Parts: sequence; structure tokens; C-alpha cells
Amino acid sequence: MTTILGIDPGSRKTGFGVVETDGASAVYVTSGIIRLPVDEPLGPRLGVLFTELNTIIDEFRPDELAIEQVFLARSPDAALKLGHARGAAMTACVHRGMAVHEYAARQIKQAVVGTGAASKEQVQHMVKTLLKLPAAPKEDAADALAAALCHLHSRQGLQSMPARARSRGRFR
Amino acid sequence: MTTILGIDPGSRKTGFGVVETDGASAVYVTSGIIRLPVDEPLGPRLGVLFTELNTIIDEFRPDELAIEQVFLARSPDAALKLGHARGAAMTACVHRGMAVHEYAARQIKQAVVGTGAASKEQVQHMVKTLLKLPAAPKEDAADALAAALCHLHSRQGLQSMPARARSRGRFR
Repeated sequence: MTTILGIDPGSRKTGFGVVETDGASAVYVTSGIIRLPVDEPLGPRLGVLFTELNTIIDEFRPDELAIEQVFLARSPDAALKLGHARGAAMTACVHRGMAVHEYAARQIKQAVVGTGAASKEQVQHMVKTLLKLPAAPKEDAADALAAALCHLHSRQGLQSMPARARSRGRFR
Repeated sequence: MTTILGIDPGSRKTGFGVVETDGASAVYVTSGIIRLPVDEPLGPRLGVLFTELNTIIDEFRPDELAIEQVFLARSPDAALKLGHARGAAMTACVHRGMAVHEYAARQIKQAVVGTGAASKEQVQHMVKTLLKLPAAPKEDAADALAAALCHLHSRQGLQSMPARARSRGRFR
């Protein structure tokens, strides 16, 4: 059994999603959003992200991290803020011995929807369908789950990523 | 006795410097440069920075972190890379319970050289003079020591930052 953590980091909130596989199918474990205390200085804010991810790693023991690669940041200011969150989040995982796998947004959409030009809504819909969830996860959580599914796909050559539902843990 | 760690993070190398004070004078403890394995993927690279900083924190037990605030990044790409390094480095310190203090480059230069428009060389020279070092530290290490000295200055209202030499640890 392999457990993959997908994350979608941001300077205000970070989506996360955990997916398991026994080699044949992808199984939903948990997903959610870590909200950073935006009124606090940068240090404590990144500390919250690091600590929350450690709690998730403690609880679900993922083996590997999947994260979207950033090619085109909007502005230097936005890129710096995103870099802070990505650096803190990736460090939390590397620190716990997890391998980090980066995928381009197009690869993730291609793996989950079947086209690299899919919309956010299509990603949310396909994540819900593939993982047999009762409702579409919120955007950031859906993106995190999509990254995790893309990694499973790439890792194991899962063709259609059949999923069976098994809700444990939060879904928010 | 208060111990301050200053760092000057970058995507290829991160300068660090440790300065102590008994409330009256600033004392040089150590400084150096952490070189990141630039041929490796981002995850392991940030892992090296996190681990090396943890080793420095283990050895010198700094109480607080001083770091230059970034206002104007050159490009989105450079900003993202810098953000990764800053995020990993700040997380390493916050994770160990250290308070993080950010200072604008102008504040640091003002505190160390007496003018916010000082050159890199002037900063190196004044760090050498203030800390009674045998030679000027390399640029990144000098910037890290300057951030630490700026924090001491701001923290304790040290007027002239008199220093006495006491070399322990590396100087590279």
C-alpha cells in the first residue's frame, strides 16, 4: 500500500489531499485546507503550515509528496509569497523523509481530466468522480488531490484510475 | 547572554552568522556559507538547507533570527527561487522556537555602516571592524552578520556596537 500526499500551497491557504493505492486502484483518504494566520508575521505563518503538515504526516503517514510545479508566476511579489509557502511545505515533507515529485499543471490536468487545458471546475468534477466522493472538494483541496492522483498515475501507469470510495478523516 | 543568528538566504547559497551579546557589546561567534546542491531537485536542495541550519542551531543555540526583508525581487522566477530558500530557512528557525525578525536592507546598512545607501564592500568592511575579525567575511556571510548586528542594535539600542574579538567556530 502506497500513500501519496498532494498539496497545493498558497500564501493564504494550502490545500492538501491524501490518496492511497494498493497498486490497482486509487482510494480517497482525506483532504482539506490549511488556513494560514494572515494577520501574523511571515515566520509564525510559515510555522503554522509546517506544523499542520507535520500533524497530517503523523496521522496519515504518506510515503511521497506530489506538488504542482510553478512555471509562470504572476508577479515578483506573488512569486516570493508563493515561494515562501512552497519552501515551508516541501521542507516539512523532506524533513520527514518523503520524496518530492513536481508535476506541471498541464500534466496534472491531463492525468485527471484527459486534457491539459481543463478548467478548475473540470478538475474538481473529475476528482469527485474518480474518488467516488459525495461532493466536489473545494478548489485547493481538489487541486491537491489531483496532484496526488497524477503522481499515482505516473508512478504506476494506472490507466483509468478506478476508485473506490472509503471516507475516513475530514472532508472540508 | 543573547545569541542572534543572521541569515542571507539564496537559491544557491545561504550566508549565516552568529553574534552574541551580554547587553553591552557584540561578540562574533561564527559565520559561513551553506552551499545548496544545485544539481539536485528542489526538495533535497531545501532539505539540505533545513538540515544544515538545524545543525547550526544545535551547535550555537541562537535565541532569535534576523533576516533581510525582500521588497523588490528582480523577476518572478528569481522571486520564487528566493522564496523557496527563505521559506525553508525561516521554517527551520521557527520550528526550533526562534522568533523571526525581518529588517529592510536600508535598516541593516544604516545600523552597520551609518547610511542606508552603503555598498556591499562597506558592509563587509564594517562587519570586520565592528566584530574585530582578522579579515572581511565573504559577502553572504557578511550580510548575515550585518542582519544579526542590526537586530542587536534595534533590540538593545546599542549605540556604537562596540565589539570584542572572540573567534570560536568556523570562519569561511
